[in-house]
Amino acid sequence: MSEAAQTLDGWYSLHDFRSIDWALWKTLSSDERQEVIHEFLGLVEKWNKTEEFKKGSHALYTIVGQKADFMMMILRPTMEELNEIETEFNKTKLAEYTIPTYSYVSVVELSNYLPQGEDPYQNPDVLARLYPVLPKAKHVCFYPMDKRRQGNDNWYMLPMEDRRTLMRSHGMIGRKYAGKVKQIITGSVGFDDYEWGVTLFSDDVLQFKKLVYEMRFDEVSARYGEFGAFFVGNILNENNLAKMLQVN
Amino acid sequence: MSEAAQTLDGWYSLHDFRSIDWALWKTLSSDERQEVIHEFLGLVEKWNKTEEFKKGSHALYTIVGQKADFMMMILRPTMEELNEIETEFNKTKLAEYTIPTYSYVSVVELSNYLPQGEDPYQNPDVLARLYPVLPKAKHVCFYPMDKRRQGNDNWYMLPMEDRRTLMRSHGMIGRKYAGKVKQIITGSVGFDDYEWGVTLFSDDVLQFKKLVYEMRFDEVSARYGEFGAFFVGNILNENNLAKMLQVN
Amino acid sequence: MSEAAQTLDGWYSLHDFRSIDWALWKTLSSDERQEVIHEFLGLVEKWNKTEEFKKGSHALYTIVGQKADFMMMILRPTMEELNEIETEFNKTKLAEYTIPTYSYVSVVELSNYLPQGEDPYQNPDVLARLYPVLPKAKHVCFYPMDKRRQGNDNWYMLPMEDRRTLMRSHGMIGRKYAGKVKQIITGSVGFDDYEWGVTLFSDDVLQFKKLVYEMRFDEVSARYGEFGAFFVGNILNENNLAKMLQVN
Amino acid sequence: MSEAAQTLDGWYSLHDFRSIDWALWKTLSSDERQEVIHEFLGLVEKWNKTEEFKKGSHALYTIVGQKADFMMMILRPTMEELNEIETEFNKTKLAEYTIPTYSYVSVVELSNYLPQGEDPYQNPDVLARLYPVLPKAKHVCFYPMDKRRQGNDNWYMLPMEDRRTLMRSHGMIGRKYAGKVKQIITGSVGFDDYEWGVTLFSDDVLQFKKLVYEMRFDEVSARYGEFGAFFVGNILNENNLAKMLQVN
Amino acid sequence: MSEAAQTLDGWYSLHDFRSIDWALWKTLSSDERQEVIHEFLGLVEKWNKTEEFKKGSHALYTIVGQKADFMMMILRPTMEELNEIETEFNKTKLAEYTIPTYSYVSVVELSNYLPQGEDPYQNPDVLARLYPVLPKAKHVCFYPMDKRRQGNDNWYMLPMEDRRTLMRSHGMIGRKYAGKVKQIITGSVGFDDYEWGVTLFSDDVLQFKKLVYEMRFDEVSARYGEFGAFFVGNILNENNLAKMLQVN
Repeated sequence: MSEAAQTLDGWYSLHDFRSIDWALWKTLSSDERQEVIHEFLGLVEKWNKTEEFKKGSHALYTIVGQKADFMMMILRPTMEELNEIETEFNKTKLAEYTIPTYSYVSVVELSNYLPQGEDPYQNPDVLARLYPVLPKAKHVCFYPMDKRRQGNDNWYMLPMEDRRTLMRSHGMIGRKYAGKVKQIITGSVGFDDYEWGVTLFSDDVLQFKKLVYEMRFDEVSARYGEFGAFFVGNILNENNLAKMLQVN
Repeated sequence: MSEAAQTLDGWYSLHDFRSIDWALWKTLSSDERQEVIHEFLGLVEKWNKTEEFKKGSHALYTIVGQKADFMMMILRPTMEELNEIETEFNKTKLAEYTIPTYSYVSVVELSNYLPQGEDPYQNPDVLARLYPVLPKAKHVCFYPMDKRRQGNDNWYMLPMEDRRTLMRSHGMIGRKYAGKVKQIITGSVGFDDYEWGVTLFSDDVLQFKKLVYEMRFDEVSARYGEFGAFFVGNILNENNLAKMLQVN
Repeated sequence: MSEAAQTLDGWYSLHDFRSIDWALWKTLSSDERQEVIHEFLGLVEKWNKTEEFKKGSHALYTIVGQKADFMMMILRPTMEELNEIETEFNKTKLAEYTIPTYSYVSVVELSNYLPQGEDPYQNPDVLARLYPVLPKAKHVCFYPMDKRRQGNDNWYMLPMEDRRTLMRSHGMIGRKYAGKVKQIITGSVGFDDYEWGVTLFSDDVLQFKKLVYEMRFDEVSARYGEFGAFFVGNILNENNLAKMLQVN
Repeated sequence: MSEAAQTLDGWYSLHDFRSIDWALWKTLSSDERQEVIHEFLGLVEKWNKTEEFKKGSHALYTIVGQKADFMMMILRPTMEELNEIETEFNKTKLAEYTIPTYSYVSVVELSNYLPQGEDPYQNPDVLARLYPVLPKAKHVCFYPMDKRRQGNDNWYMLPMEDRRTLMRSHGMIGRKYAGKVKQIITGSVGFDDYEWGVTLFSDDVLQFKKLVYEMRFDEVSARYGEFGAFFVGNILNENNLAKMLQVN
Repeated sequence: MSEAAQTLDGWYSLHDFRSIDWALWKTLSSDERQEVIHEFLGLVEKWNKTEEFKKGSHALYTIVGQKADFMMMILRPTMEELNEIETEFNKTKLAEYTIPTYSYVSVVELSNYLPQGEDPYQNPDVLARLYPVLPKAKHVCFYPMDKRRQGNDNWYMLPMEDRRTLMRSHGMIGRKYAGKVKQIITGSVGFDDYEWGVTLFSDDVLQFKKLVYEMRFDEVSARYGEFGAFFVGNILNENNLAKMLQVN
């Protein structure tokens, strides 16, 4: 057996993608629509409070194309809280006008392909990455992924040292995009269908393409990456939420 | 032909996953909702009785994310009883407000990659594992899986002795999690689309990830494991069932 | 080109799987439900007559889990008759309360990997197997399957003699279950998405698992078998049909 | 780069598969149903005229099993005409009672793995095959297919001469069924998800199975064939259309 | 790690495929339908203005077969504008009568497997290709694709020089179709499920098949191409839009 990688795990994470049932939404009067939006913003306000108190974080983004109209990404200390938030949203009036299209359950993860010695949980940088405040960047990109186990391309059969070397060189690419792209890795082995979720944030949407494409030529992705669906979108704050949901 | 593995088989098992049609549920009056919940709790009460009389067992859990809102796992001595329970649930009022999203049919199984000699059905430990009382742990994880038959990675072409050695080392990992994670293996060859269902119970949801991830580096999973969808959730007792279904 | 296997072909076969729309079914009055059941039993009575006159056969079984609520398997001398029966069922009142979930079109088949010489169509045993009366066993198991054509595991590139040897040893396993499991093989090349359908009948549902699992270690399945969905269920006679459809 | 095969291309082809919404259909009065059928037969009459004037051809068949209730195969000189016919059907009353289940867009194709020299478009046999009158055989079989590009089994990397030899031997099998099975090959590279559609016509439905199964042992199919869904059915003329749609 | 290919990126692109709900559409009065069409043409008129001012481009085409009834392809300078147009369409009355069936998010891309030296963004030819006016050709063909990463056929593990050579020869085939087929490549790594979208325009629909088929024999496609669904259709201008939507 290959030596298993160790992980550091932070907040639990739910990505919840929804489409709007526009035909149904348009049957509401303007006042009714305002009420629905008002109720939802109340929920967001609660989430903002939680974020302020550093008990979690969240991000709201539109999604471009038919895969969804918007996405809520929620970080919380426990799986129970994620479940409660999901159910609370499902009971809102807004939820009646949305159709669930995809979701992802995971936990913020740092993989420990790093020099050993110190206790990482004492490291403030590590803690800031395990319990992050999600950025309010202009754009988001989300995709789930696996490490491949196929014939001669079997990540999990590689010796630890080889995996460490490959990951180090892979990390180099990521570092080139520092300041341009913020990356949150969430682990989902045992929680959802892929092994990881990758959530990227950037003010320049093109950087997502450049980063993911450059990585694809790196052996870790080229030989060992298996990718699920890709979602891309724009930030959804109070202003453009109202605009998105406005009907003349 | 390779020597076939022998299995010990206990109670039949149905995993039944359901989503709630929240918009429809909210059309009910508070009294009507109470009546629906009351009827369902009556059914659960019958299941509790069966469990008390050691004629079966069951577990109710929420599921996090859009794959389902809750799961019922039912163990019974015969396939007919599973079918009756499924149909009985389908006739409840609650079922009218749920949407079936996934199910799994299997039988509690112990694989006999073990030293031979004794009659396992005389062994009280074995019996307790074939006819288990499902734990009331805080969290559940379910996934179906196959052993791979692909090119050089063909489990079923390996000699018995190799499979036994591999499984023994695989079991070692499981044993490291004893006291943290309780594992129920159910066999589904001939009953459902994968060969096994794995149901894990733990009070610490992170242990699911640690266990499954550590196993993935073991040759049995790394080379020979094929995994279906993963479901994770929290216990659903009378209290939080009421809370989950409550609408203001 | 490898020498093609010859087949003997008997009655055409339709497996028709249906789920019940329970919410809709419950909107009917008790009298209306009786009428629907009565009409359907009239159809079954016609099928019984056909079976009596040895012009076909049929079997009705429930299906456990969400894949379907019940299955009708129909054997007839022509594809036109299958089509007529399917359409006749679709026009019944019962059909209005069911949702089609899966179907399989095939023809009862004996493969001729056998010693040659005699005319098999003169053999009463062969005829009994090509035009069978379906057993009224307690349980059914159905799955479609292919012979693999993948890299070095390509059944259709093997010499006839090798295939014959492999099939003979495969058949041995089946024979061990004689008296416990009755197996109907139907060929579907050119008729449906897999190459064969396998329908197993037994009074002991566990024998399905034992048989299919034992075969999986045999080279024919281990290297060359590709399996579709598995369906398992219990016999549905007049009594338990009424019970299944009864609503209090 | 391997030398590309040349094709001869004739009429454009649309296979349009539909299921009937029986519950909705039964809500009509007998007179309304007659009107719907009458309107559809008017459309078919127009298609018959086009066929008479050798400006296209069509075929109507039922489909056995749940994949569809019937199929319309339409040949026309331009893609625009196919589109118009499709839209014209979509506007009929009958279409309101059908559910689209599958379609295939292609063009009648002869592949030119043949001795070269003559101008094939001067050959009346070739012209009759590019602009065929579809047979009124009792049965139809349709399936889409690809040539495999996988590891060592990559059709498109084979030298032209090898492909020619393989196709010649493949064609031999087809020729054995001359008089029993009429085969229309339509090319769909760039038009639909597979590379070819195969439509077989026969008065003996068992010949579809014999032909496709025999070909599967031929290297072209065994090593290089990838197959999509298979559809089989019976001819649908004015008489049995009325019978199929009749409700008592 | 292989040297990553550089890309030049132009306008963002949304392909939006829709089916018409004909039964619902027919419930409208002729006047209501006119109003719906009128509103949609107003939206198209705005797009025309944007195209005139060289701030974007768009194309409207029908789609043949059941995959969709029509497609809108929209090019804009930002991802936000694509999102706004998508939402604006979703709020139209026409959208209430359509069903989303597929979409694709990407960005016009030129790959830089070209001799280096000059600044491509100074090259007017390059600029014309990055910010193109979409042709008003009679026919369109769209498909998404990946470069394969499978066993020995792993595009991303090839040295840059080999990829450059292969792409050059691949480009030769494209150039043979100059004047017959106009090709727009859009990159979607990080944006959608495949790595590229290919949109072809031609006045002769058969050229799509000839081009794609010829390319399939080229090593870049034969060994390294993975293709998604193919869509083909006819131009949808104001005239035939009215005709398509007209109901007698």
